Amino acid sequence: MLNLHAVKLAIPEGANIILGQSHFIKTVEDVYEAMVNTVPGVKFGVAFNEASGPCLTRSDGTNEELRAAAIGIATAVGAGHFFAVVMRDTFPINVLRILNMAPEVCTVFCATANPVEVIVAESEQGRGVLGVIDGSSPRGVEGEEQVTARRDFLRKIGYKR
Amino acid sequence: MLNLHAVKLAIPEGANIILGQSHFIKTVEDVYEAMVNTVPGVKFGVAFNEASGPCLTRSDGTNEELRAAAIGIATAVGAGHFFAVVMRDTFPINVLRILNMAPEVCTVFCATANPVEVIVAESEQGRGVLGVIDGSSPRGVEGEEQVTARRDFLRKIGYKR
Amino acid sequence: MLNLHAVKLAIPEGANIILGQSHFIKTVEDVYEAMVNTVPGVKFGVAFNEASGPCLTRSDGTNEELRAAAIGIATAVGAGHFFAVVMRDTFPINVLRILNMAPEVCTVFCATANPVEVIVAESEQGRGVLGVIDGSSPRGVEGEEQVTARRDFLRKIGYKR
Amino acid sequence: MLNLHAVKLAIPEGANIILGQSHFIKTVEDVYEAMVNTVPGVKFGVAFNEASGPCLTRSDGTNEELRAAAIGIATAVGAGHFFAVVMRDTFPINVLRILNMAPEVCTVFCATANPVEVIVAESEQGRGVLGVIDGSSPRGVEGEEQVTARRDFLRKIGYKR
Amino acid sequence: MLNLHAVKLAIPEGANIILGQSHFIKTVEDVYEAMVNTVPGVKFGVAFNEASGPCLTRSDGTNEELRAAAIGIATAVGAGHFFAVVMRDTFPINVLRILNMAPEVCTVFCATANPVEVIVAESEQGRGVLGVIDGSSPRGVEGEEQVTARRDFLRKIGYKR
Amino acid sequence: MLNLHAVKLAIPEGANIILGQSHFIKTVEDVYEAMVNTVPGVKFGVAFNEASGPCLTRSDGTNEELRAAAIGIATAVGAGHFFAVVMRDTFPINVLRILNMAPEVCTVFCATANPVEVIVAESEQGRGVLGVIDGSSPRGVEGEEQVTARRDFLRKIGYKR
Repeated sequence: MLNLHAVKLAIPEGANIILGQSHFIKTVEDVYEAMVNTVPGVKFGVAFNEASGPCLTRSDGTNEELRAAAIGIATAVGAGHFFAVVMRDTFPINVLRILNMAPEVCTVFCATANPVEVIVAESEQGRGVLGVIDGSSPRGVEGEEQVTARRDFLRKIGYKR
Repeated sequence: MLNLHAVKLAIPEGANIILGQSHFIKTVEDVYEAMVNTVPGVKFGVAFNEASGPCLTRSDGTNEELRAAAIGIATAVGAGHFFAVVMRDTFPINVLRILNMAPEVCTVFCATANPVEVIVAESEQGRGVLGVIDGSSPRGVEGEEQVTARRDFLRKIGYKR
Repeated sequence: MLNLHAVKLAIPEGANIILGQSHFIKTVEDVYEAMVNTVPGVKFGVAFNEASGPCLTRSDGTNEELRAAAIGIATAVGAGHFFAVVMRDTFPINVLRILNMAPEVCTVFCATANPVEVIVAESEQGRGVLGVIDGSSPRGVEGEEQVTARRDFLRKIGYKR
Repeated sequence: MLNLHAVKLAIPEGANIILGQSHFIKTVEDVYEAMVNTVPGVKFGVAFNEASGPCLTRSDGTNEELRAAAIGIATAVGAGHFFAVVMRDTFPINVLRILNMAPEVCTVFCATANPVEVIVAESEQGRGVLGVIDGSSPRGVEGEEQVTARRDFLRKIGYKR
Repeated sequence: MLNLHAVKLAIPEGANIILGQSHFIKTVEDVYEAMVNTVPGVKFGVAFNEASGPCLTRSDGTNEELRAAAIGIATAVGAGHFFAVVMRDTFPINVLRILNMAPEVCTVFCATANPVEVIVAESEQGRGVLGVIDGSSPRGVEGEEQVTARRDFLRKIGYKR
Repeated sequence: MLNLHAVKLAIPEGANIILGQSHFIKTVEDVYEAMVNTVPGVKFGVAFNEASGPCLTRSDGTNEELRAAAIGIATAVGAGHFFAVVMRDTFPINVLRILNMAPEVCTVFCATANPVEVIVAESEQGRGVLGVIDGSSPRGVEGEEQVTARRDFLRKIGYKR
């Protein structure tokens, strides 16, 4: 029997999250090093669901609140080999390419500061992530004025030249 | 409540598509640069569903038909932070590794010229991609003769030495 | 109409698997070269579901048992453009980053030695992977003692310094 | 005894070159596949100096003139494990990141359409590349007007948004 | 005629530098975006020696002192297609992998906060970098006590777990 | 004053080496993990020349003979921030791409089992690598028969399909 759940995540105020699939308890140390090596003084937590043996949620990080939030997300989702990174004052764009180079990371489901529902399948064996509802659905297509505003905004914040 | 839909995509004649999950409106500019920097004279369109604030489908590209097709796909799927690239005379194999290096890209769901159905979950909050049905299911396992034909074909088109 | 199935995979004793989405029959040769170029004497099999034309499961490898297992997985899942790698005495951590650089690979669903159920959606057109249940769900959060044991274990096996 | 030479390269009209260090005769096939997989219809030649056994300059490509030019460059430089790629209607920016992923490539000395002098050290054992003089030395620092012209130029050719 | 020079660089107090070879004026914008996208609030300057046409030293950055320092280094070295990045409160380890992904970067000669002499070859055509003297030569081999101190130091600053 | 030396390296029987430039004492731990994570049971040594403070040659590895050889090479070259990896039963092609992803690696000068002379510049400040003479210079260009032999050889050893 297969049940589907939509798990609403609790994301701390002002934080961003990255959710993904990985494959070894070493994930938490390698993600830790990837984060710390990339952004000086980074504040984050990471949690990973071990999927065999003791089956514990493993975690690491530089900030206890964010580490607890990552553990909370990993526990709520409850899927084997799932991981969550929660960061503040740092953004997914800063670290995503480097996290993807961690030797155990399979894929990243989403990277966001929006409300997220994780769609989880549950069988007798366990749970698995099917996908994520990341923020809201689109309400329209940008027009010329909004293209200009978008381009200006990216240049004003300095992300594009 | 969670509904699942199979969204059939309209792919322009002779075009290939790449579908993925990303996380920032800068995606459309960075995918644009990745495409233009990789294939001289590339014809393509890209669209991305902004998932907060104005929630607009953002787009860019070098060809209006393909840009409209990308917007059509992004709108039909309707999932937050989803993106679609539609290209002609260029193939996913040409650009996939480079797109995966764009700083906002989380994952790529599929790359194909086949008919595609995107499996979308819909909740009150919004929509999310669960997976894709890419072309047809296998009808058998290759035999020795078909192995030879495969290997010869890849060498005839010059993709393998 | 859309049906969901949980496909239980048959993983050979002592083997690890990597499951993913790719987009061209060249996948089997490129994965072959990626594996052989990375781990001296690697024992593995790879299978890929062609999703158009003859729609055959294509395969390659250095070990017939593992190649047959990869074909078995690809056939059981039955999704277009799905691929499976089955390896022994080599681990996903050894090859995952290199597989992700293969020019046709879109994403990796999971990498594991655990029991796996693949959640597959089936429509009239074909089948697609929605996600995986990889091993068991977490049964708790690690405590201080278990953190120490984890860190010691990774250093004892030499994976971390 | 160590002699230094400045080897002036003959670059075909309208061509671009990439010069680097690699480490195995498989380089020519892997560079071939990297080029052909990235730019549809790419015109290029590649040559690599084998540095043990028969010590032959190995080559491949899709265009005989450019292949001969690559061989000419590799022969003129005469350093072990040196390689040269010569391309037309394709530019180093299109392929550099992909070439750097070829499994044998150590480093790239330069990528250019400018006149090039390769600085070669010669001992009794053989020859090695020390560096390249790529085009002309700077004649000044850009002023405000030239910054604007540079930024406008990159957007006019479409390489930047 | 070929002359060799050792060019001593002026590195601002507390700054780190990265020196490399690239191939297009777009380098300054792409390095700018790579830096800004990776480290929130990064302070840096980048300069690149255009090697054809107007042959100007092109530059960009977020900090005028560091931008001037980068221009000073590029001008002092005077080699075509050479670039220099000067950063403060950010370290090469934070950005090196991302800089290496910039589409025009060929190679990085060094990354350091040490005194640097750049070895430059000069011909009638122009100048080229042969190598760098980065800091001081080793004065011995670490003993057991120093291994322990090294490992403890990396863990104390948090760079290794 | 600037002196050039050709430093002949002592490479252990049957070993391969990779030489490069890096920038932090963490290099030895990160290269250790990169090697151990990639090739199961890998036998190697790595040494890195710290270029400030105590200026010690730092090292790590899984095999004392190869570690001693790496230290011997790093000491003989004597350049700041230079590193050497010496491996047996593993080949540069297996690990080069992964080493290039180590967060501190700037560039790789060569990867080879051939006799190597490292060209070193020496000033009053210290020493720097200018380039390498890797094996012998080419003695001719391959003819058709030798192309066939090359292609057959790569397929016979299984490195190419």
